[in-house]
Amino acid sequence: MLGVGMVGHAFMGRVHSQAWRSVRAFFDVPCTPVMAAVAGRSPERVRAAAERLGWASAETDWRALLRRDDIDLIDICTPGDTHAEIAIAALEAGKHVLCEKPLANTVAEAEAMAAAAERAAARGVRAMVAFNYRRVPAVALARRLVAEGRLGAIRHIRAQYLQDWLVDPEHPLTWRLRRDKAGSGALGDIGAHIIDTAQFITGERITGVTALTETFVRERPDGDGGRGPVTVDDAALFLARTTGGALASFEATRFATGRKNALRIEINGSEGSVAFDFEAMNELWFHDATLDDAEGGFRRILATEADHPYAGAWWPPGHLLGYEHTFTHEIADLLSAIAAGADPEPSFADGLQVQRVLAAVEASAASGGGWTPVP
Amino acid sequence: MLGVGMVGHAFMGRVHSQAWRSVRAFFDVPCTPVMAAVAGRSPERVRAAAERLGWASAETDWRALLRRDDIDLIDICTPGDTHAEIAIAALEAGKHVLCEKPLANTVAEAEAMAAAAERAAARGVRAMVAFNYRRVPAVALARRLVAEGRLGAIRHIRAQYLQDWLVDPEHPLTWRLRRDKAGSGALGDIGAHIIDTAQFITGERITGVTALTETFVRERPDGDGGRGPVTVDDAALFLARTTGGALASFEATRFATGRKNALRIEINGSEGSVAFDFEAMNELWFHDATLDDAEGGFRRILATEADHPYAGAWWPPGHLLGYEHTFTHEIADLLSAIAAGADPEPSFADGLQVQRVLAAVEASAASGGGWTPVP
Amino acid sequence: MLGVGMVGHAFMGRVHSQAWRSVRAFFDVPCTPVMAAVAGRSPERVRAAAERLGWASAETDWRALLRRDDIDLIDICTPGDTHAEIAIAALEAGKHVLCEKPLANTVAEAEAMAAAAERAAARGVRAMVAFNYRRVPAVALARRLVAEGRLGAIRHIRAQYLQDWLVDPEHPLTWRLRRDKAGSGALGDIGAHIIDTAQFITGERITGVTALTETFVRERPDGDGGRGPVTVDDAALFLARTTGGALASFEATRFATGRKNALRIEINGSEGSVAFDFEAMNELWFHDATLDDAEGGFRRILATEADHPYAGAWWPPGHLLGYEHTFTHEIADLLSAIAAGADPEPSFADGLQVQRVLAAVEASAASGGGWTPVP
Amino acid sequence: MLGVGMVGHAFMGRVHSQAWRSVRAFFDVPCTPVMAAVAGRSPERVRAAAERLGWASAETDWRALLRRDDIDLIDICTPGDTHAEIAIAALEAGKHVLCEKPLANTVAEAEAMAAAAERAAARGVRAMVAFNYRRVPAVALARRLVAEGRLGAIRHIRAQYLQDWLVDPEHPLTWRLRRDKAGSGALGDIGAHIIDTAQFITGERITGVTALTETFVRERPDGDGGRGPVTVDDAALFLARTTGGALASFEATRFATGRKNALRIEINGSEGSVAFDFEAMNELWFHDATLDDAEGGFRRILATEADHPYAGAWWPPGHLLGYEHTFTHEIADLLSAIAAGADPEPSFADGLQVQRVLAAVEASAASGGGWTPVP
Repeated sequence: MLGVGMVGHAFMGRVHSQAWRSVRAFFDVPCTPVMAAVAGRSPERVRAAAERLGWASAETDWRALLRRDDIDLIDICTPGDTHAEIAIAALEAGKHVLCEKPLANTVAEAEAMAAAAERAAARGVRAMVAFNYRRVPAVALARRLVAEGRLGAIRHIRAQYLQDWLVDPEHPLTWRLRRDKAGSGALGDIGAHIIDTAQFITGERITGVTALTETFVRERPDGDGGRGPVTVDDAALFLARTTGGALASFEATRFATGRKNALRIEINGSEGSVAFDFEAMNELWFHDATLDDAEGGFRRILATEADHPYAGAWWPPGHLLGYEHTFTHEIADLLSAIAAGADPEPSFADGLQVQRVLAAVEASAASGGGWTPVP
Repeated sequence: MLGVGMVGHAFMGRVHSQAWRSVRAFFDVPCTPVMAAVAGRSPERVRAAAERLGWASAETDWRALLRRDDIDLIDICTPGDTHAEIAIAALEAGKHVLCEKPLANTVAEAEAMAAAAERAAARGVRAMVAFNYRRVPAVALARRLVAEGRLGAIRHIRAQYLQDWLVDPEHPLTWRLRRDKAGSGALGDIGAHIIDTAQFITGERITGVTALTETFVRERPDGDGGRGPVTVDDAALFLARTTGGALASFEATRFATGRKNALRIEINGSEGSVAFDFEAMNELWFHDATLDDAEGGFRRILATEADHPYAGAWWPPGHLLGYEHTFTHEIADLLSAIAAGADPEPSFADGLQVQRVLAAVEASAASGGGWTPVP
Repeated sequence: MLGVGMVGHAFMGRVHSQAWRSVRAFFDVPCTPVMAAVAGRSPERVRAAAERLGWASAETDWRALLRRDDIDLIDICTPGDTHAEIAIAALEAGKHVLCEKPLANTVAEAEAMAAAAERAAARGVRAMVAFNYRRVPAVALARRLVAEGRLGAIRHIRAQYLQDWLVDPEHPLTWRLRRDKAGSGALGDIGAHIIDTAQFITGERITGVTALTETFVRERPDGDGGRGPVTVDDAALFLARTTGGALASFEATRFATGRKNALRIEINGSEGSVAFDFEAMNELWFHDATLDDAEGGFRRILATEADHPYAGAWWPPGHLLGYEHTFTHEIADLLSAIAAGADPEPSFADGLQVQRVLAAVEASAASGGGWTPVP
Repeated sequence: MLGVGMVGHAFMGRVHSQAWRSVRAFFDVPCTPVMAAVAGRSPERVRAAAERLGWASAETDWRALLRRDDIDLIDICTPGDTHAEIAIAALEAGKHVLCEKPLANTVAEAEAMAAAAERAAARGVRAMVAFNYRRVPAVALARRLVAEGRLGAIRHIRAQYLQDWLVDPEHPLTWRLRRDKAGSGALGDIGAHIIDTAQFITGERITGVTALTETFVRERPDGDGGRGPVTVDDAALFLARTTGGALASFEATRFATGRKNALRIEINGSEGSVAFDFEAMNELWFHDATLDDAEGGFRRILATEADHPYAGAWWPPGHLLGYEHTFTHEIADLLSAIAAGADPEPSFADGLQVQRVLAAVEASAASGGGWTPVP
């Protein structure tokens, strides 16, 4: 039995709850997670969330979760400005931590968190950052193909995360548009995902960047009848080089009209290529360049076969999975790592490295696009 | 509170369990389903299933479920040869019934079931047949477009359900390949789905058919070292006319190499068309023929918007749903109908009508393809 | 040098002209075609066509072409009711013949034409029927894959030819909608193409059919202010069995709203599958079922590689071909056959066999869908 | 009558020949082009090309074309290092000029050419640079939609030109890999196309760039048994801003394994988006964001309707066009401009502006990615 306490119960809290609720029915996890408590600031809202999402109790202060003996793991589903404080306190209290991405709002916070995770690991306490897209079966299959050498030397990475929910200039000034809460805009929210996904699939790291960012709509309704300044980017584009010598391009935007959640990545290697789009998340497109030219072509692998990562735990071939399943997979892997006494991946150190790429992007954009190495 | 007892815990039992477990976290259902008991023949296996799938108790005889006061609804997830007996007994015991498709193995059984459902309805006891594909958001959206007149007069229906799991001649002779258990082969298993889906979207009924069926591999490994006869169809094709004067074609096969779960339907009307493929189940393709020719074309609607059927209950746009969600939607609708004192759809009468189409297909095929009206 | 005389200069005449004009620049043809004369009934229109399409002279009677010594080949681009008379006279006059499809409007005419072609062949005079879709590189590649055994035993053929130009009930009553001129409607015009294409790719023949046809709009504007009866089918659907034991479905319609020229064919075999859609005519989708499940999937082969049929004669990979190129390929093959003293394919005998399938479809539909063997 | 003399008869010469040969059969051009002469250095090869491609005579020195009275227009199909000399001489000799892209190998050459074109225009002599992709019907339709305001304010341009013919390290060191002949590598050859296409569709200009380039394979077989240095880029990536405030990304590479000729462009505006891929060149994907969310989606417009740019001159809807047709359209427009006494587009001034973007990209890449304004 592993008691779980979750902090936050909005979008991320809802999806994490579904994952905690489902994981044991599909995966042979080494321990049974118990949905012990959820924490939120509003007593009414957190009680309603507990009831609806299936948590046994509700707390109005996340610190209360840390004091409870029936809670072994803290699942952090709050905005980025709170991650460092909660995660470090939880780890020091001997609780395992699952923390939403991006790891933090600044490199300094992320460094402190990674250091805390390292100290905790020495005591058998584990920390994981929730880059859930690694657990899309098609993405994990792409990683496997690269690891098996099927793509050869990586030449190009072409990654985009395209959304369009800010195209309307009347969209209100929510916390995601404020630097003090969110750290950055499209860059940290969705750009962080494509950085992690690209590095995960290729096994390479970004060594430097040149970047442009833009805020197309500078003021938005503040909810009090006025307008307030948007203090984060609407879009962030950058070019990069990797440890393996690939040329890469990245784009994160909330202004790609008609694209709803298009996390796209294409990787070209000397022996083959893969392409993925989250809007068709059950498909991996694979080109095997070692075949005869006359029969070459990108093939649409429906990543629902028993041999595909995670897919065998669910339904027969062709019976699709959805967004939420990536979180179930994440939690299954986390529970396995805890039981095995191993550090789960992606670790806080991985989260810190992504944070350093984000910081390099912001520095390059601020300097007008100059080349900026990632430390 | 509504106590649920489920019969059967294989593939269908697993997916129904996930739906019962999840429905209340996403839909404002009028009552709280309680997963009271699961029934299965093997004591060990049913206990393990109860534990894993989240049922509070296990029974080794489905009749025990009918005697329990804490159970208000029987969910039938067993092969077709058992549906009539269980469903009729449950309805007579005053339990609501959710029954997997096809409703039965014969028209006679289905007639008895529909009659029992009609009697039960008079006492406020409800029955529903589980044609889950109606609850794919994209399919329900197609229905809505037709109902709004966006397609005009329906001219063509083109429906296929393509799988390939029998291509290998060494695939064993499971119950689905035996007429006594399954009633028919691809026809009843997956053909029933496209009949229901086509009729649901168009609001029209099939009036007659001309059909061909085939069993490509006549003997398969029987599990005892020998080979036994396959007594059902591997593939069934039929042409049809509908009440509205459309020409329709249907194909159900387990020999469509490379197609895993391709439930496809295209409908052409005088004002527009829709096309759907379950292997990309979050997409509906819609052509609006009233637009200027120069800007006409099939558009890919990602059926994940808040305004799309069922989709608003889940995640933001572009965050896909999967196979299992169709069952959650089905159960949400069933609970709403029970609470409202209304007959859920599709009813057992709907299931009986599909059974009559299946029987007409078999009769036509037996006669060498002659025209066979549907009563 | 090979003198060519073309009869008819409408749609088919325009595309044949482009092929005659282009063939020698791209294919190593054994003789140089000379565009000697075009024949048409209206003196003004045929002269204008000759001038524009690049024919050296114009005639107002096709018989004049047969009397000219500078003409060695007659290219018949007129409606089906004239094919038999022109083709037989041309062959008897010692002219090679290229004849548009369907070969004729009746089986009797087609039989006479095939007999004439057989007599002519004995004298070294050649005849070819213009099923141009065989010469789409992707279609020819599909044929090659089947011939190499890459698909194994053929189980299913799924062929459709979908257009929508008759959806508007005000579309006028042109010759294609009159039985006396066109023989049949969608069936002969586009159904003939999918019959030929399916048989060409698989190397199998249709042995019998069960069919439905429909005329959705029964009267149309006759051009004189009134309305006249449509005497052909708007849509024809049929199921079939083949010499190799496959189950096949065919649909030809002019009422598939939003589909412009969707000649589609999918073929499933025990070892693999292919799929094709003319609206993306440079692509062949191929599934190789002998690969490991984990990397299987339909691959999009862009049929523009040097090793693909016909493609090497044109441009580098990825530089697409269009509709008209299929005619250029057809003529290149015809010229090669003439020079080699071989019968070109598809022959008039092939055209006759397709005509017999068309007749069986009409007979089955007239009988209400009964099974009708193809002689 | 307009006499044409073509210089060069390799890939570009073959496709230009097909366009000159075909244009008058499909377009109502104001004058009849006469294929008077082709020039090439090898007497045997140029004579063979003339014979095969349909040119009335052959010359071994391009200067001979300028001296002939029967030649009114010079069509330059040679490598970039020769463009300036030939084009300027031709214009000064009073011949109209069609020049392949990129306009030149350097900005200085391009400036001289643009100046020569301006002087010539004053005398009624016209010059055009052959950015043929503007004349893809789907691309011209995209331009029309933007010009009509259907996309609103342009926010993003995402352009790629992906090929893979250099992935093999044994591909020989042809002229396209030598800076002295080609000026640059992927950048000038295919990058120039996406710069022009993006500017053409949006009507905006690139104001500055930040760029990375790479040569993955530094030495290749030189044809004499040794290996020589590759002196151009294999891939060039750059980010840009435009006059209208859009953020843009561009990538040109010959190392995108599996992509053969994927000129792709997506443009997102405040009211809608378009997307295009040359590997499916008959399709334009258009998203109209002014529609209700529930029916929004990218629609696949098959750009073969009579109302689509250029398409009406060819075949019925759904009968696709290919690569070569873009050149026929280009020549039709050129002939119309000459007859109208107007400057054709794209002009040499347009070609010069593209050259300045190419130079800025090279300067930025040389400086390690720093922001570089386009003059």
